[in-house]
Amino acid sequence: MKSCLSVFDGKNILVTGGLGFVGSNLAHRLLEIDAHVTLVDSLIPEYGGNLHNVEEIAEQVKINISDVRDDHSMRYLIQGQDYLFNLAGQTSHMDSMQDPETDLEINCRAQLSILEACRHYNPDIKVVFASTRQIYGKPDYLPVDEKHMLRPADVNGINKMAGEWYHILYNNVYGIRACALRLTNTYGPRMRVRDARQTFLGIWIRLLVEGKAFEVWGGEQLRDFTYVDDAVEAFLLAASRENANGQVFNVGGCEVISLKGLAELLVGSNGGGKFEIKTFPDDRKRIDIGDYYADDQKIRSELGWEPKVNLKDGLARTLDYYRGNLEHYL
Amino acid sequence: MKSCLSVFDGKNILVTGGLGFVGSNLAHRLLEIDAHVTLVDSLIPEYGGNLHNVEEIAEQVKINISDVRDDHSMRYLIQGQDYLFNLAGQTSHMDSMQDPETDLEINCRAQLSILEACRHYNPDIKVVFASTRQIYGKPDYLPVDEKHMLRPADVNGINKMAGEWYHILYNNVYGIRACALRLTNTYGPRMRVRDARQTFLGIWIRLLVEGKAFEVWGGEQLRDFTYVDDAVEAFLLAASRENANGQVFNVGGCEVISLKGLAELLVGSNGGGKFEIKTFPDDRKRIDIGDYYADDQKIRSELGWEPKVNLKDGLARTLDYYRGNLEHYL
Repeated sequence: MKSCLSVFDGKNILVTGGLGFVGSNLAHRLLEIDAHVTLVDSLIPEYGGNLHNVEEIAEQVKINISDVRDDHSMRYLIQGQDYLFNLAGQTSHMDSMQDPETDLEINCRAQLSILEACRHYNPDIKVVFASTRQIYGKPDYLPVDEKHMLRPADVNGINKMAGEWYHILYNNVYGIRACALRLTNTYGPRMRVRDARQTFLGIWIRLLVEGKAFEVWGGEQLRDFTYVDDAVEAFLLAASRENANGQVFNVGGCEVISLKGLAELLVGSNGGGKFEIKTFPDDRKRIDIGDYYADDQKIRSELGWEPKVNLKDGLARTLDYYRGNLEHYL
Repeated sequence: MKSCLSVFDGKNILVTGGLGFVGSNLAHRLLEIDAHVTLVDSLIPEYGGNLHNVEEIAEQVKINISDVRDDHSMRYLIQGQDYLFNLAGQTSHMDSMQDPETDLEINCRAQLSILEACRHYNPDIKVVFASTRQIYGKPDYLPVDEKHMLRPADVNGINKMAGEWYHILYNNVYGIRACALRLTNTYGPRMRVRDARQTFLGIWIRLLVEGKAFEVWGGEQLRDFTYVDDAVEAFLLAASRENANGQVFNVGGCEVISLKGLAELLVGSNGGGKFEIKTFPDDRKRIDIGDYYADDQKIRSELGWEPKVNLKDGLARTLDYYRGNLEHYL
């Protein structure tokens, strides 16, 4: 990855959602070379932004607190940037059902507005958008490749689908180089663990570290998981490669596991702990997608990406991080 | 169709975009039985609404001038309705590129807001949404069936795709019975002919009736066409059948024809006239979808729909209408 990172040397890089989980890990990685990094984040308490995520690098990056819905702020910030890692988003499926308009404002309208700003003020920028497996809805077949129909099962999935397509459209029509990564469950240090808004694994880890039992809903569903460092490498590769432009890529992980299997692995990694299997609450069941795991051959073959951190190691590193840092995430 | 129409007898029916092309034709048809029809339209000059469209029935329907973006108005109007024909939309592909935010407000945000109003104030309503073939983008194969990937080629296509999915989602999650018809080029009396905003056929017919030459861009592209009476029957069938709920249906036509072939047919039907073949303007070419025609077997077999008016008859009826009414559409 040295050769990949070198393209960012001395470049101006904007990360929306830069104080969040993936954004802050990306920022740490980018600082390993001489990139000029600006992190934009709204620090909305229900979302993933957390100043603790960048505590060690706060002097080396610019931090700009603003919302991607603020067109004027974004219009200014986009100028002079070589790369935009566009990671800001509302991620909670449940919140998108309870407040669909806010989800639309962030995941649709703000995205369109960012791309319009790129088109008018910085058409040479390269954009990588954080999309989600959620847009596939309930899979017809497994593993799910990029040819699978998009049939989102919640408002968040619909809006992220639109947000992803704006990026591809602006690439195709206006030549604003852009691509999208469809992330699955991503986990690791700096993720939100206060609740399940970002990933259910967050609240599991919090409760486990606090010595409390966590709940597993259902348990039989199969899922895949990406350790955040592997996700970060996918973003860097997608940004650095011209053959990524106009493309969407699934990002998967090293293994597929049931939620119950994952819970057992997590408890094992922790050297103890408890969980309870619960039946799915009704409101969640209505938007649940069942089994999902990605076919990520496309990003492997076209961009040379490969996950390096298996679940066992990734969970151990994550638990280790929260044992030392939990207080900053509550 | 008598048996189909009877379900609307004495029912309260709301039509958004009700002064527009399809909406006003639908209103005429609904008045053949004792339905209580309310037409909502914003009468935005660039869109399809035209009071002349309902001149003959103005005493028999309620006309409410308001915009689907007006949440309060829609919240009130939705109450007490048995059926909603949700036809209001921004339809111009070019306008959606020049002013993407307005397209988003109408085709995404307002749709979500209407569905939220249904959910909170009238969950028993049945909704039929006017979607579009535009959401498929450039076809991978022909004819295009409902299993074809959605890869919209302009902002309008992306936003209509989201709008369609909100309807399906609210059906699936909340039981707000809803379905969507993916219309192709629909034509007939009461369409907008002032310009090409609704369909290129509009401006062709206007110029032909005015004795002027019209322009055919490209000419080789294959397309299908639905006469408006056939489209209206599709809406009525979709509203009346419970097996339509949660479904999307392509609506096609009697025949497939090249644009040049269509131009010749139109000139023949008019008993004279001229057109010129032009190369595609660049800004249009970038969002053009090439050949398209629908596989509409699904609506034929599941709802029993069948187009009755062939192109020759439909064009003749349309020309006849505009010979007598053109002044009201300029």
